Amino acid sequence: MSAKAGAVNRMDKLLHNPVSNFIDAALRGIAQVFFQDNPLTGLIFLIGIFISSYVAGFYMLLAVIVATGTAMLLGVSREQISKGLFGFNATLTGLALELYMKHNLILPPYVILAAIFVAIVTAFIQDALKPYQVPVLTSAFVLTTWLFIGALYSYGRIGGVSPLPVPHLPVNAPITTTTLTPNDAVLGFFNGVAQVFFQQDIWTGVAILVGVFINSRISCLAAVVGSLIGIGVAWALGGDAASVRAGLFGFNPVLTAVGLGGIYYSLSAKAAVPTVVMTIVAAVVTTVVYGTISTVLGPIGLPVLTSAFVFTTWVCLFATKSLTRLQAIPPNEATKPEHHLKATPQAKQR
Amino acid sequence: MSAKAGAVNRMDKLLHNPVSNFIDAALRGIAQVFFQDNPLTGLIFLIGIFISSYVAGFYMLLAVIVATGTAMLLGVSREQISKGLFGFNATLTGLALELYMKHNLILPPYVILAAIFVAIVTAFIQDALKPYQVPVLTSAFVLTTWLFIGALYSYGRIGGVSPLPVPHLPVNAPITTTTLTPNDAVLGFFNGVAQVFFQQDIWTGVAILVGVFINSRISCLAAVVGSLIGIGVAWALGGDAASVRAGLFGFNPVLTAVGLGGIYYSLSAKAAVPTVVMTIVAAVVTTVVYGTISTVLGPIGLPVLTSAFVFTTWVCLFATKSLTRLQAIPPNEATKPEHHLKATPQAKQR
Amino acid sequence: MSAKAGAVNRMDKLLHNPVSNFIDAALRGIAQVFFQDNPLTGLIFLIGIFISSYVAGFYMLLAVIVATGTAMLLGVSREQISKGLFGFNATLTGLALELYMKHNLILPPYVILAAIFVAIVTAFIQDALKPYQVPVLTSAFVLTTWLFIGALYSYGRIGGVSPLPVPHLPVNAPITTTTLTPNDAVLGFFNGVAQVFFQQDIWTGVAILVGVFINSRISCLAAVVGSLIGIGVAWALGGDAASVRAGLFGFNPVLTAVGLGGIYYSLSAKAAVPTVVMTIVAAVVTTVVYGTISTVLGPIGLPVLTSAFVFTTWVCLFATKSLTRLQAIPPNEATKPEHHLKATPQAKQR
Repeated sequence: MSAKAGAVNRMDKLLHNPVSNFIDAALRGIAQVFFQDNPLTGLIFLIGIFISSYVAGFYMLLAVIVATGTAMLLGVSREQISKGLFGFNATLTGLALELYMKHNLILPPYVILAAIFVAIVTAFIQDALKPYQVPVLTSAFVLTTWLFIGALYSYGRIGGVSPLPVPHLPVNAPITTTTLTPNDAVLGFFNGVAQVFFQQDIWTGVAILVGVFINSRISCLAAVVGSLIGIGVAWALGGDAASVRAGLFGFNPVLTAVGLGGIYYSLSAKAAVPTVVMTIVAAVVTTVVYGTISTVLGPIGLPVLTSAFVFTTWVCLFATKSLTRLQAIPPNEATKPEHHLKATPQAKQR
Repeated sequence: MSAKAGAVNRMDKLLHNPVSNFIDAALRGIAQVFFQDNPLTGLIFLIGIFISSYVAGFYMLLAVIVATGTAMLLGVSREQISKGLFGFNATLTGLALELYMKHNLILPPYVILAAIFVAIVTAFIQDALKPYQVPVLTSAFVLTTWLFIGALYSYGRIGGVSPLPVPHLPVNAPITTTTLTPNDAVLGFFNGVAQVFFQQDIWTGVAILVGVFINSRISCLAAVVGSLIGIGVAWALGGDAASVRAGLFGFNPVLTAVGLGGIYYSLSAKAAVPTVVMTIVAAVVTTVVYGTISTVLGPIGLPVLTSAFVFTTWVCLFATKSLTRLQAIPPNEATKPEHHLKATPQAKQR
Repeated sequence: MSAKAGAVNRMDKLLHNPVSNFIDAALRGIAQVFFQDNPLTGLIFLIGIFISSYVAGFYMLLAVIVATGTAMLLGVSREQISKGLFGFNATLTGLALELYMKHNLILPPYVILAAIFVAIVTAFIQDALKPYQVPVLTSAFVLTTWLFIGALYSYGRIGGVSPLPVPHLPVNAPITTTTLTPNDAVLGFFNGVAQVFFQQDIWTGVAILVGVFINSRISCLAAVVGSLIGIGVAWALGGDAASVRAGLFGFNPVLTAVGLGGIYYSLSAKAAVPTVVMTIVAAVVTTVVYGTISTVLGPIGLPVLTSAFVFTTWVCLFATKSLTRLQAIPPNEATKPEHHLKATPQAKQR
């Protein structure tokens, strides 16, 4: 509760009936894509998506509503639902299906089925990871989306869509040195943020950064650093300039940097230096891994989505029992970076 | 014990020597493919397979005998062996190798090696899943079979076989609407059941349904519903009509429906509605996932086997800690749907 | 401590300052590739690599030093570091990147990044496997190497390298019978040992066997048996003769045989027969699995590395709770086969 700004507190007072509680949970579900537990952030993200595409916004809302409802009906704890933890994977699944599937009469029920299933998958991964105190992240979205779009190669009525990468055997990348203009870098920077929501639109990127900023300055800074790392590493390793511009190398390290930089690792005095170093290393590795996963998925024509972020972040969070210099925050205690700074002394007393 | 019909009880009295105990365990191993702990069911299944193919029946028996023996020699608990829990994965592995491998002098020792290994893999997965109270299902069969048939692309003396899918890059499915005649639907319905044992034969399908029916009416009903869902979803999404007819879209949802519909979820009063809904959703998703896994396996030329069932069912069973409306049955307490109905009041008292 | 030979003990007395401790840890890191906790063994391995290639030796040293240093800075326990447990995966990662990547100015920092990450991945897998008491083996090397070389298909400045298998769809192996001359068998035998370190050089193979022998006669015998099994199985199944000669079918079963034959399974009186049988079965299956994994990796152009060993050995070690005839040694108690023989009576008293 204390995590919310004053304005949000006042909103909360107004929200006593189930309908408004549900709306609150759905908006937090959108905000949790960036680990932010704040309905206002979710609302700004929503506006940012609508700036870019109405249809995308519609399927995103449909999915987050269905998944949140499914979680309620199947008996997920109130606390998790109200924090939006059963919404953010659905948010992204709705956007992905809108982007990759054919738009016909089968799409709405198909998105509804996927949204029901993503809630179950979220519960599955959460329960599987419980002994390790590692969060679900966007793994439920990645898995569900792969399952539901991979089927379009097998079933004729949902197939025939263009934005998916054409299945191909990997070929050695041509030996290039990426030349980036300042203009490319600026486009890549904002698109890298917007691509988290599958959008390629500078203003969507700006809206997302604003939405993060109003809830956590540290998270916003981490997002900025993550997007810059994505561009920098792709440039250094010779990544394709058009993809840099489109923000494709950026959205995974953006999420890694926000997730590790204060949300699931504490930035408190003692752990600050190792956390910053690990976050930067992880964001760099995430960009490398993005390239590898796109190699691996090449022959089956599936997109990387946020799998590079999920993988690298899981590696780092699982490792914290052995890596004692880092201070991991358990999933159910994670609120926002600023809180973990203050909470540390108490945590030490235990 | 109380799970057995009168006739079976009388058989048990006759079976006191090790040989007959072993036969009993092997027959239950065959029956457990459909989660049925009943030697008579296994015998009927065995007859059903022999109706379709003597050679298949031979390799199935060889594998189930070797695996059951291996489990005994390596010290698996008596209870698990006598329930057939170390037999059913071998049953399917024997059938799969018979179908996909070249028939030469190397095949019998190769099947024996695979049957030894599938017993070890069953122990591996059982021990890995123990903290989660989730059953092995047919995962040991899927894994072992992939490992043993995937090698035929690398080793000349076991290679050169036809029924495997030719390695290929996925192509967008042609935009079709599947037209099914009533005849197609009936063939698809029974073949969907028979394909669990890799057979395409209506009478094998009938025998299997009879074998399930004599042990559990609820499981039989679930199998019927699962096969219908497979046909229905494949038709709705535009699946290939010849594959529908051959039962290829059916065998995975059949197993999902039987597994979740009463065996590992209780159908007791309180949980009945969520269980039925979840079972139907899971069977529908299994059919979608079947399409995706066949996309993913396309480039490496391996068959889907029952992986779509294993995956979807695991997702649902792992999730039951968070999804509190469902009542999961732990693997070592799972007997048959009818028992779980009665047992529930006692379970609540705990 | 008692595991060390007299000579090594005297070395230990000399080594009291941090620098020599670090050197000791790094050398053990090299020796641990063969599960040997002995700096002299590591030194002999190092010489063996330098016999084959100076550049390979350089990158190997760079990686093991960086990874050991990273583990220290991130707070890994002293005991694990001094045993070389955070070094051996890096040792192999350095060798693999040297072999598969383009040699340019990006390579040294790229290897350093990979070495930092492999230390984190080692911690990740160790922590993930902790509830199961199963060791990391070379999984951290396999994963990190795949991630770092897979990227060369996506990034132009690191791409364009030849020794990687060209991405291809698997084709049924031509029906052949492998004819091996005695000369082929001898070459294959020593190269099978040397290929653990990516070298194809008889004298490297000899040096490695000597290094293992001075620490453990049983491990040396297991390595010999493993290499022979690799050749024998590949010959029986019709594997490619040139690959047999190069030792490619050998290095995975070599590691499986050493790992299971005395290190992680006890060879004490009661468990001796099942352990020997299981070790042989596992080494045979490892060779089959090598063929399958190379099929699976064909379309994405990645090498098998030691994944066949890791997979098969994990299966066997996870299974030991159910397979009660085998006596597994927990990772932090594993020293060397000869010790476990003596230690058993005490273990029984507990």
